[in-house]
Amino acid sequence: MAKRSLSGIKPTGAPHLGNYLGMIRPAIELQDSYDAFYFVADYHALTSTHDRAAMRAATYDATAIFLAFGLDPERSVFWRQSDTPGVTELTWVLSCMTSMGHLERAHAYKAARDRGEAGAINHGVFSYPVLMAADILMYDSDVVPVGKDQVQHIEMARDMAQRFNHTFGDTLKLPVPSMKEEVQTIIGTDGQKMSKSYDNTIPVFLPPKKLRKKLMAIQTDSKGMEEPKDPDTCNVFTLYKLFADADQVAQMRENYTGGNYGYGHAKQALFEVMDGHLAPYRETYLTLRADEDQLEDVLRDGARRAREVGGAVLERVREAVGLGGR
Amino acid sequence: MAKRSLSGIKPTGAPHLGNYLGMIRPAIELQDSYDAFYFVADYHALTSTHDRAAMRAATYDATAIFLAFGLDPERSVFWRQSDTPGVTELTWVLSCMTSMGHLERAHAYKAARDRGEAGAINHGVFSYPVLMAADILMYDSDVVPVGKDQVQHIEMARDMAQRFNHTFGDTLKLPVPSMKEEVQTIIGTDGQKMSKSYDNTIPVFLPPKKLRKKLMAIQTDSKGMEEPKDPDTCNVFTLYKLFADADQVAQMRENYTGGNYGYGHAKQALFEVMDGHLAPYRETYLTLRADEDQLEDVLRDGARRAREVGGAVLERVREAVGLGGR
Repeated sequence: MAKRSLSGIKPTGAPHLGNYLGMIRPAIELQDSYDAFYFVADYHALTSTHDRAAMRAATYDATAIFLAFGLDPERSVFWRQSDTPGVTELTWVLSCMTSMGHLERAHAYKAARDRGEAGAINHGVFSYPVLMAADILMYDSDVVPVGKDQVQHIEMARDMAQRFNHTFGDTLKLPVPSMKEEVQTIIGTDGQKMSKSYDNTIPVFLPPKKLRKKLMAIQTDSKGMEEPKDPDTCNVFTLYKLFADADQVAQMRENYTGGNYGYGHAKQALFEVMDGHLAPYRETYLTLRADEDQLEDVLRDGARRAREVGGAVLERVREAVGLGGR
Repeated sequence: MAKRSLSGIKPTGAPHLGNYLGMIRPAIELQDSYDAFYFVADYHALTSTHDRAAMRAATYDATAIFLAFGLDPERSVFWRQSDTPGVTELTWVLSCMTSMGHLERAHAYKAARDRGEAGAINHGVFSYPVLMAADILMYDSDVVPVGKDQVQHIEMARDMAQRFNHTFGDTLKLPVPSMKEEVQTIIGTDGQKMSKSYDNTIPVFLPPKKLRKKLMAIQTDSKGMEEPKDPDTCNVFTLYKLFADADQVAQMRENYTGGNYGYGHAKQALFEVMDGHLAPYRETYLTLRADEDQLEDVLRDGARRAREVGGAVLERVREAVGLGGR
């Protein structure tokens, strides 16, 4: 039987190229090698999203995005976190197994404290490593693919599970972090790492005209049309390589170095390969996103299957600590 | 329709006279004027009890105690907290509405910090005011009878409800603390306040021989048998007044002041009134406690009724914040 992987998806709305190539695509690829579990983390989102319409829309967005990019809800289990509320019960149990000192060392809280904002953040932010541990331990997850900055969370989940097992007997499976292969950093329209905070993103589901406009605004140097250009320092070329095949890339390199090829031409070529790649996904996404009932069906079916696994773990936990009746 | 009261019962095992007169009896009297809700707080107990057998036994103890002293499970709703796990979901939601600064001002946490132990306490201890707020708000409680030291918890629950309602629209009912009438302090066998920490308690369900032995050890002065004695400074007399009727008390006062009446006589008289009062409760308790299936039935029926009320509130909350599907 395949090992189980667990991925949490923050419902944050329209994804950009960095999200797609760095997170969504690798996450979906997990379903080829694992019994892959995915949940849309709306309890986590509640630490910052206090708008019910935005909350629900973002969950449907995330669902349609994953389905559009090929997540197979038959093979994998894809659900909304708040459809498995038992995870908050496990959170409480784990809270009783976790020292305050332990949580105070969590990166996010330490950063807030260093900024002098520790008192102002809400308790959900402080305790979300416990919810995250519950997410992981609730489904007997074998591996949790994470970036470097999230390894601490898996370590905390392991610590809680170990302390639980030590106190109450062997109950919880210890997860193993699986470091994601370092995806090449995706640059934004200004050449910095693509990020909402730099306002340099290229959203993946822009309509063609808007996508083209976005690409036309990519920063380049000011070399004239006729001058030879350096592909290896050019943002347009860097993005082009992500979508073009080897022949196209070789041809583009010649265009750059040969001169008489302007940045406008290069951007148009970038638009064509990128739109060619994204258009089918975009269409699928728009179709899926327009039918919330169908998305709801997918989420509910996923939740039902997640509850089968999670409910059994929760029963073991309740029995181990003596909650509920005999 | 009667207002709803809510009482949380810590499952702490064998009650002593101080618990009985100061907490259990007044709590049970609520059922005469309120739609009275009572829960055995096993999630709270998990912050300190890490022993499954002790946890379950203590819940059955608490249930048998309340039933023995007259709690009517038809009129009132009496259940085990962990049979309504939705309260942990509300806890998470409220956590996202509560600043860390707010929780750091809670008495119990401040005391731990002042002792330099803040890092060592578990996160359950730190966050239990949030669970307590969820307990209260989950059942649209009107009043929560509390002692002076717990008023802060009700204020915190009100703050969370107000912030929630302000953010998401009117959803949660604001509870009102109802200060318990100051029950006369019950003294222990050494004349100090009766408390487990002073090792001076008189457990209410001791078998007669052991109860008598306990009472014979009450501290008195060393006046001889024939000397007149001062009833108003005597621990035996103080306890006697709690159980004897007015005539008996008047007679005892005469015995004290008249002389030729020893402390041994007084203690025997105390034993007789106390055992006379407690014996029927003790027998009922022992019969009830011996039948865990029946206790379980009571708890399950209570949980079913608690879930009807609590489930509706939770649905309002989930709808307000945008958890779950449309």
